[in-house]
Amino acid sequence: MARALSSCNGRANLFGSSTSNLLSPASVCYRPLVVRMSREQPYSYWANIEADVETHLKEAIPIRHPVSVFEPMHHLAFAAPRTTAPALCIAACELVGGDRSQAMAAASAVQLMHAAAYAHEQLPLTDRTRPATERRFGPNIELLTGDGMVPFGFELLADSLDSAQNNPDRVLRVMAEIARATGSQGLVDGQFREFIISQSDEEGAVDASSIEYVSRKKEGELHACAAACGAILGGGSEAEIEKLRSYGLYAGTIQGMLHGIGRNQKGVREMVENLRALALKEVESFKKREIEAISSLVQPELSFV
Amino acid sequence: MARALSSCNGRANLFGSSTSNLLSPASVCYRPLVVRMSREQPYSYWANIEADVETHLKEAIPIRHPVSVFEPMHHLAFAAPRTTAPALCIAACELVGGDRSQAMAAASAVQLMHAAAYAHEQLPLTDRTRPATERRFGPNIELLTGDGMVPFGFELLADSLDSAQNNPDRVLRVMAEIARATGSQGLVDGQFREFIISQSDEEGAVDASSIEYVSRKKEGELHACAAACGAILGGGSEAEIEKLRSYGLYAGTIQGMLHGIGRNQKGVREMVENLRALALKEVESFKKREIEAISSLVQPELSFV
Repeated sequence: MARALSSCNGRANLFGSSTSNLLSPASVCYRPLVVRMSREQPYSYWANIEADVETHLKEAIPIRHPVSVFEPMHHLAFAAPRTTAPALCIAACELVGGDRSQAMAAASAVQLMHAAAYAHEQLPLTDRTRPATERRFGPNIELLTGDGMVPFGFELLADSLDSAQNNPDRVLRVMAEIARATGSQGLVDGQFREFIISQSDEEGAVDASSIEYVSRKKEGELHACAAACGAILGGGSEAEIEKLRSYGLYAGTIQGMLHGIGRNQKGVREMVENLRALALKEVESFKKREIEAISSLVQPELSFV
Repeated sequence: MARALSSCNGRANLFGSSTSNLLSPASVCYRPLVVRMSREQPYSYWANIEADVETHLKEAIPIRHPVSVFEPMHHLAFAAPRTTAPALCIAACELVGGDRSQAMAAASAVQLMHAAAYAHEQLPLTDRTRPATERRFGPNIELLTGDGMVPFGFELLADSLDSAQNNPDRVLRVMAEIARATGSQGLVDGQFREFIISQSDEEGAVDASSIEYVSRKKEGELHACAAACGAILGGGSEAEIEKLRSYGLYAGTIQGMLHGIGRNQKGVREMVENLRALALKEVESFKKREIEAISSLVQPELSFV
């Protein structure tokens, strides 16, 4: 079954070229998956994970010299719009049988990367036509705080060996995953495309493929990376890692499409429905009881999407 | 002898508190060191290393999709004012008996961090009073390119396991070193202090301790980290790693003081002379023939300082 799904949703089709599209006809094989769950249980599962990650990260960011740099980091690390990527990292780790503590540094790093990217998106630069937002700190502090958060994320990962019994090979692999997902082929690429759209006349009527591209590069690849990293650190098999990576890609892209640029454009709801089906297929092969929580990330009746 | 020097220039004295100063009386024990060398040999040694790092990094930065992101990275990775930190990384690796290839990824990462920091320093933000410089790309592209270069540096390091026979423990240690040196306690802290100075009325007559602080946090810690990373990857002993770290700290601080803010202020030349003596002491215990090249980094008769 896993093999059949793999050939249907094969990554080669999705990412083989720069023009690949998550919703190319070959990749859509819709088949509803019945997931039984109460409405309360998934809420508390995600809320519990998110509280743990926030506690961990707040403790990890020291109030130390220079206070003028670390105080903004404390604030800006949680000032970005909520992303479920860090929680997905933990959930993926637990789904493959790992302990939450093994993925905590990676989840914190993912949150820092998201927060740093958001802080830089808000900077008032001379070639940005969007109005600047209200800010608690000056632009220069926000620039430098973002610049500090990214290496701090890698520092947390490098230091995680001491506390979480992860082996160096897994941690290095995770660092490479996060570097790729947040760099010029991932998040930065999405920000670049979004910037181009925002500067053009098309913003009012941006086409669906651009919405999908930006959502995939920003939220999609961050969630894909987060899920893969959780699975790597939790000791998942290569097949499990790749399934969870694909699940994260779909789940994150859905969130980007529903909350990002062009969310009100025609066709977006239908694309999201297709992505939801693709996402659920990726986790079908895990034990049914265990996927209830992780699957809830893409369920329309919950507030996540 | 090494022990005697260590107690003289002990790191506890230098970094024990946030107000520590490289030139506190306890840390200055000037004793001239005779280093014999021809004027040509060190030049060609550094030029050769720098050419190797540049070639490696140019090959490592792919011309790939999105070209609009990677073309600026090709340019901006070498657009910053020259720093000798990457070359020092290689030199330290060779000094402890390592092969140049073992430190090439780390040297490239150091260059990328330096270039990213410089690119962000040039951004026209609304709370910067300094005139914006001429730019080849728009501010938003330069912001995003800087944002892409930092994770790319970590990606190069994570990938270096495959090619250079470095073990995962050493690579992880190097990643933590680079994260710390370039983050909110290192380079970003120096940029923050420099920004504060630039906004104040003091810029015309900045005091020597501020010059020293900014130089130490920016060029000093980058060189310290680069030298330590080279020594770690080259298989140096802990004592060698710490000596080279201290050497890098002095050598980098010298360069920052001679080329950065307040370079023409009273007292800077004397402080540089003291740092030069401290730097040379750190490498005394290596074999005399082998230190000729690395010592040249702080020799006044060469163009490096």
